[in-house]
Amino acid sequence: MTDHAPGPVDPTVLRQVLDGPWAEVRDAHRAHLDERFLPVYGESGDQARERITRLLTELPTEVGIASAFPTGHGGRSDVGASIVASEMLAQVDLSLMVKAGVQWGLFGGAVVALGTRRHHEAYLRDIASAKLLGCFAMTETGHGSDVQQLRTTCTYDPQTQTFDLHTPHEAARKDYIGNAARDGRMAVVFAQLITGGQRHGVHAWLVPIRDERGNPMPGVTIGDAGPKAGLAGVDNGRISFDHVSVPRDMLLDRYGQVAADGTYTSPIDNDSRRFFTMLGTLVRGRVSVGGAASAATRSALTIAVRYGDLRRQFGTPGAEREVLLNDYLAHQRKLLPALATTYALHFAHTELVTALDQAHRDDSPLDEHRQRELESRAAGLKAAQTWHATRTIQTCREACGGAGYLAENRLPGLKADIDVFTTFEGDNTVLLQMVAKGLLTGYRDAFGSLDGWGRASFVAEQVREMMIERTAARSLIQRLISAVPGQDDEVAVTDRGWQLKVFEDREKHLLDGAIRRLRNGAATKKDRPFDIFNDVQDHVLTLAAAHVDRITLEAFVAGVEATTDPAARALLSRVCDLYALSVIETHKGWFLEHGRLTPARSKAVTAVVNGLLKELRPQMGTLVDAFGIPPAWLHSAILREEANRQETMAAHDAAGDPQVVPA
Amino acid sequence: MTDHAPGPVDPTVLRQVLDGPWAEVRDAHRAHLDERFLPVYGESGDQARERITRLLTELPTEVGIASAFPTGHGGRSDVGASIVASEMLAQVDLSLMVKAGVQWGLFGGAVVALGTRRHHEAYLRDIASAKLLGCFAMTETGHGSDVQQLRTTCTYDPQTQTFDLHTPHEAARKDYIGNAARDGRMAVVFAQLITGGQRHGVHAWLVPIRDERGNPMPGVTIGDAGPKAGLAGVDNGRISFDHVSVPRDMLLDRYGQVAADGTYTSPIDNDSRRFFTMLGTLVRGRVSVGGAASAATRSALTIAVRYGDLRRQFGTPGAEREVLLNDYLAHQRKLLPALATTYALHFAHTELVTALDQAHRDDSPLDEHRQRELESRAAGLKAAQTWHATRTIQTCREACGGAGYLAENRLPGLKADIDVFTTFEGDNTVLLQMVAKGLLTGYRDAFGSLDGWGRASFVAEQVREMMIERTAARSLIQRLISAVPGQDDEVAVTDRGWQLKVFEDREKHLLDGAIRRLRNGAATKKDRPFDIFNDVQDHVLTLAAAHVDRITLEAFVAGVEATTDPAARALLSRVCDLYALSVIETHKGWFLEHGRLTPARSKAVTAVVNGLLKELRPQMGTLVDAFGIPPAWLHSAILREEANRQETMAAHDAAGDPQVVPA
Repeated sequence: MTDHAPGPVDPTVLRQVLDGPWAEVRDAHRAHLDERFLPVYGESGDQARERITRLLTELPTEVGIASAFPTGHGGRSDVGASIVASEMLAQVDLSLMVKAGVQWGLFGGAVVALGTRRHHEAYLRDIASAKLLGCFAMTETGHGSDVQQLRTTCTYDPQTQTFDLHTPHEAARKDYIGNAARDGRMAVVFAQLITGGQRHGVHAWLVPIRDERGNPMPGVTIGDAGPKAGLAGVDNGRISFDHVSVPRDMLLDRYGQVAADGTYTSPIDNDSRRFFTMLGTLVRGRVSVGGAASAATRSALTIAVRYGDLRRQFGTPGAEREVLLNDYLAHQRKLLPALATTYALHFAHTELVTALDQAHRDDSPLDEHRQRELESRAAGLKAAQTWHATRTIQTCREACGGAGYLAENRLPGLKADIDVFTTFEGDNTVLLQMVAKGLLTGYRDAFGSLDGWGRASFVAEQVREMMIERTAARSLIQRLISAVPGQDDEVAVTDRGWQLKVFEDREKHLLDGAIRRLRNGAATKKDRPFDIFNDVQDHVLTLAAAHVDRITLEAFVAGVEATTDPAARALLSRVCDLYALSVIETHKGWFLEHGRLTPARSKAVTAVVNGLLKELRPQMGTLVDAFGIPPAWLHSAILREEANRQETMAAHDAAGDPQVVPA
Repeated sequence: MTDHAPGPVDPTVLRQVLDGPWAEVRDAHRAHLDERFLPVYGESGDQARERITRLLTELPTEVGIASAFPTGHGGRSDVGASIVASEMLAQVDLSLMVKAGVQWGLFGGAVVALGTRRHHEAYLRDIASAKLLGCFAMTETGHGSDVQQLRTTCTYDPQTQTFDLHTPHEAARKDYIGNAARDGRMAVVFAQLITGGQRHGVHAWLVPIRDERGNPMPGVTIGDAGPKAGLAGVDNGRISFDHVSVPRDMLLDRYGQVAADGTYTSPIDNDSRRFFTMLGTLVRGRVSVGGAASAATRSALTIAVRYGDLRRQFGTPGAEREVLLNDYLAHQRKLLPALATTYALHFAHTELVTALDQAHRDDSPLDEHRQRELESRAAGLKAAQTWHATRTIQTCREACGGAGYLAENRLPGLKADIDVFTTFEGDNTVLLQMVAKGLLTGYRDAFGSLDGWGRASFVAEQVREMMIERTAARSLIQRLISAVPGQDDEVAVTDRGWQLKVFEDREKHLLDGAIRRLRNGAATKKDRPFDIFNDVQDHVLTLAAAHVDRITLEAFVAGVEATTDPAARALLSRVCDLYALSVIETHKGWFLEHGRLTPARSKAVTAVVNGLLKELRPQMGTLVDAFGIPPAWLHSAILREEANRQETMAAHDAAGDPQVVPA
C-alpha cells in the first residue's frame, strides 16, 4: 500500500527526538531515580502513604522538582523543566507524581501565582524543600466542576482585622484534597470573599490546618476520603472550617486586596473574569496531568509490546514454535494505533509545554488572547491524553491476558492510578465543552450568550476573530495543504497534505454546523435557554475533540519535519500516517455522511492501515525503546521471566521424550 | 421523532419481566443475602481472603448455590438456577461470586461432568457443602488460551497402577488458579495423558494438593499469584507437581479410561475432538461469567443513574437550582445507550440460560450441532457482556466524578473486580475468533482447513448447512423482516423489521466477504498458511461481533413481544429502539461504506437516538429500579448522602445571608 517500509532505526536517535527540549531533565531522572522510588506491590494504604511521604522528602535535588519556583525562592523559574519533571516522576510512580504535584504544583504553584512578595518570602523556600507540606483546598463536596459556586465563605471583620473562614454545611466541605488526610500543615483554601457586606467572588487564603505535632488546628475538622481505586500513596481528605480566624495578610492578594478597613480593591473589576484569571495561572497543573497520563501510557505500551515479542500462543502449520502475540493482526490492531496516538500526543504535549514555558519567560504579561489559547489547548490535550491513557492501559492489560491482572506485572497499578486523571484537574467532558466554547466565542453574537453552559470555563467572553489557530509550523502546514490537488480522490490517503486538510475540514464543518444549530435554537427556544445549548451538546463535544485531533496531527507533522535523521524521520512519518489514518478510520462514518470520503476510499483507508501495521510490526520494539524508559522502571515480572520460560520450553520440546509418541 | 413517549411504568412490573424464569432464585438471594455479604472497603488482601472463605461456607441454603449438582449429590439438577444464583451473587460481591464459581462451577462442575459415578459418590456431597474446597487447575503459565497444548504430563505406570503427575518446567506450572493459594484441598488437574508410551491428549485428574492441616502434599509446590487488580478475596495461586503419584481411579474418566494394564479406551477416537467435548461440558462456567459481568454492570448503572438524579452542577438562566446531571445530553449519551445495551444483553443471556438449562433437562444427549451452537453463543455473549461491563463501569465511574474514584462509593471495586472477566474463562478475542470459526465452518471447503487459527475452539469441524440460526421466536423475526417494504429509505428507522434486517444483512455481508477473502488467500498464499487467516483476522472478528449483535437484538425483540403489560412493553420497545439504533450509529461507517445507509438516513439515526434519549430521560430511574437490586446491596455512600446534602444546600441558599449582597 505504501512505497517502501521504513528501514531499521537506532532507538537512541529516535529517543533524542522524543526527549526534545529539557532532555537533560529527563536524563537526570533516569540517572537519579533508582529502584527505591518504584511502586511497591501489595502494601497497605497506610504503608503506601508513609512511603510516598518519605520519598517526597528524599527526591534527589538533581531532578529539580520545584524548578518552576522563582529563582531565589527555591526554584529556577523554569516552568518547562517542572512539567517534564512531573512527567518523568509519573513514569516511576503515579502516587509520587500526584503527591509532588499537590505539593509543588498546586499548593506551591498557588502561592507563587496568587500570592505576593511577602508570601513568597515567608513560605516558598520551605515549600520547595518539602519542609512545609500543604494542600490545594478548592473542590468542595458540592462543587467540583463549577468551582465558581463554592459555598465556603471567608468574611472580613475590620474590628479584628481577620477573616472568618467558614463551612456553612456539608456540601461546602473541602473534599478529595490531596495531602489533607495525613500530611498537610497548611492549605491554600478557596472561598467566597465577603467584606463590608459585599461578595467579591472566590479568592484564596493560606491557612494553617495542623499544628507542629500534626493535630488539626482549632476549628478545623479533617477527615479521610478513605481508600480509592488507586493512588494509595496520596492522602486525600476532607476539611471543614468552623469560623476559623485567618489573619488579613494570609489572603493571597495578587488579584484582589482587602485593606485594613475592609475596602476591597482589584486590578480586575469583574468577579468572574478575575476568578478565571486566577485559575488561568494554574494551567500548568493541567498540562502536568496530561503529561503524566502520557508517561503512564508509555509504560503500559512498553510492557505490552515487549511481552508481545516474547509471548507465544497457538501453533501454525509448518512452524516449529508457536506464534508471537505481536504477529497477530488483532494484536497489532490493539497496540499499534495506540502507539501511534501516543507519539502524536507526545509531540502535541511538547509543543504546549514549550509554548507555556515561553509565555512564562516573556517579560511582558501574556495578552489575553494567547493566554486563552494556552488554556484551551491545555484543557483539550489533557482530556485527549487522559482518555487515551485510560483506554490504552486497559488495552495493554488485556493484551497481556491473565498476567496483566497481576500486580507484579505493573499494569494493574498503572490502570488504577491513572483512572482519576480523566476527572480531576477538570472533568474531561467539562474541559472539552470549554474548548468548544472557546472555538464558538467568536460567533456568540450569532446566538447570544454562552451562559447556558454554566461558567466552568477559563475562556473569557471576548470576541475572537481567528478560528483556525495553527499551533506549529503554520507555513509548513499551509504549504502541505495547498499542495493537495483539487480532486481529493486522486490523492493517496498517505498524502500528508490531504490528511491535514481532512482534519481541518472536519473541524471547520463541525464548527459551522454548531453555529448554525445554535443560531436556530436561539431563534426557536427562547423560553428554554438550557435546551438551546443542551440539544447540541453532543455536537459541540465532537467539535472540541476534532479540534484537539487537528492540533495533535499538526504538532506531529511539525515534529516529523523537524527530525533530521533520515531513518528516524521515515519511521516517524509512517507512524504519523498510522495516527492520521486511524483517526480517519475511527470517524469514517462522519466523513462518509458528509461526502468527504467515498465508500471505496473509506475501505482503502482500512486497507492502508492494515498495510501500515504490517510495515510497522518489525519496528514495534524500536518504537517503545525510543521512549527511553530505564528497564528497571518497567518493574514488571513477566518481562523479567517470560523470555527464559519460552526458551526453556522450546528446548524441552525440541528434546522431546523418546519414550512417548502421539497415540 | 417517535410517535409518543412511553408513559409511566411500574418498576415492579418491569422487574418481573427482567427476572424471567428462576425469579424465585433471584428473590431468595434478595431475601437471604444480608449486608454481611457485601464488600468491605479498605481491607487487606489477607482479610479479604479470610472473609470470603468464611462467607463461602455461610451462604444460606436458600440460595441453592450448588443446585446444578445432581439430585441426590447435594444439588437438584437445576442448571439454570445455578447460573442465576451466581449472577445474583455477583450483584452482591464479585470476589464471592468468583470464589463460589471456582468451588461449585469449575471444580465441582468438572467432577460432575468429567467424572463418573464413583467420583460423584465419593466427593460431590462434600464439594456441595464446601467441606471439601477445590481448584480447577487447567491454565499453565505458558498456555492459557491454547489449553490443548498444556505441558503438564500424567504418565501411567501399570506396575504401580498409578499415574505420575509432573510439571516439566516453569512454563508448565498451573497458574492463576483460584482457591489454590490458601484454601484448596484438592484440584482437578488437566494434563497430557500418557500410557503405554503413547499420548492421548489432555485429561483431568482429581488430585489432593493439601493435607488435613493445610500443608502442601508431598511433591506439590504451591505459590501465591499475589495481589491483583481486583478480586482480593480470591486466593489465586500456582501449583507445580514433582512426580506426584496419583491413583488410577482418580482419573476423571467419563471421556477416556485407562485399564489396570494401561490400555486406553474412549468413546471418542480423535484426541482433539475428545478434548473439546470435555471442555464443552464446562460451557456453564462461561455463561455464569457473562451473567456476573452483566450483574456488575447493572450495579454500576444503578449507582450512576441514581446519583445523576440527585447531583446538580452548573446553573442555567431562570432556574432556581442547578441542573441535574441526568438532564445533560452528554450525560444521557453516556448512560442511556449503555443501559439499553444492558437490557439487550440481559434478554440474550436469559435466552441462553434457558436453552442451556433445557439441554441439560433433555433425556437424550444433545446432538453435536446444538451443542456447538450453545458453545458459540456462550462464547460470543461472554465476550460482549464482559467488554460491555468493563466499558460501562468505567463510564459510570467517570459519570460520578471524583466520588466515583472513592472505594466507599462501590464503583472502584466493581471496576477492579470485573476487569479480568474479559480475559478469563476464555480471552474475549480468542472467543470471538471461535464464534467466527463456527460461522465459517460450513464453508471451509472453499478455503481449506481452519487450523491456521490454532485449535482454541469448541467448534467441531463439521460442515454446517444453516448460516443464520435464529435463536428466538424465529417466525416472529421472519415476519417482522418480511414486512419491511423493498425500499429501505421509506421505512422509519424505528421500524423493528428494518432494524432486524439491517443487523442480519450486516452479518451476512461480513460472512460472505470473509469467505471470499479466505478463498482468495488460500489461492494466493499457499506458502504462507498463517497469513491466509491472519490477514483477515480483523474482518472475522468484526463478523463475530456482528453475529453477537444480531442474536442480541433478536432476543431483545422476542423479549419485548413476550411482555404483556402494555406500559412495560411500550417502554421496552423504546429501549430496544435505542439499543438497535445505537449499534447502527456506532457502525454507521460500515453501513455507509456498503450502501446500506444513505448519508441523510445516517444523520437521521443520530437525530432519532437523541430524540430517544429525551423520551427516556424521565424513565431512567424506572429502568434501573427494574433491575431489582435491593438498596442495601448498592452499598454506595453517595447514594445515602447526596440527597440530604443537596436539600441542605438548597435550604441554605434560599435562606441566604441578609447581611451580604453581591459586589
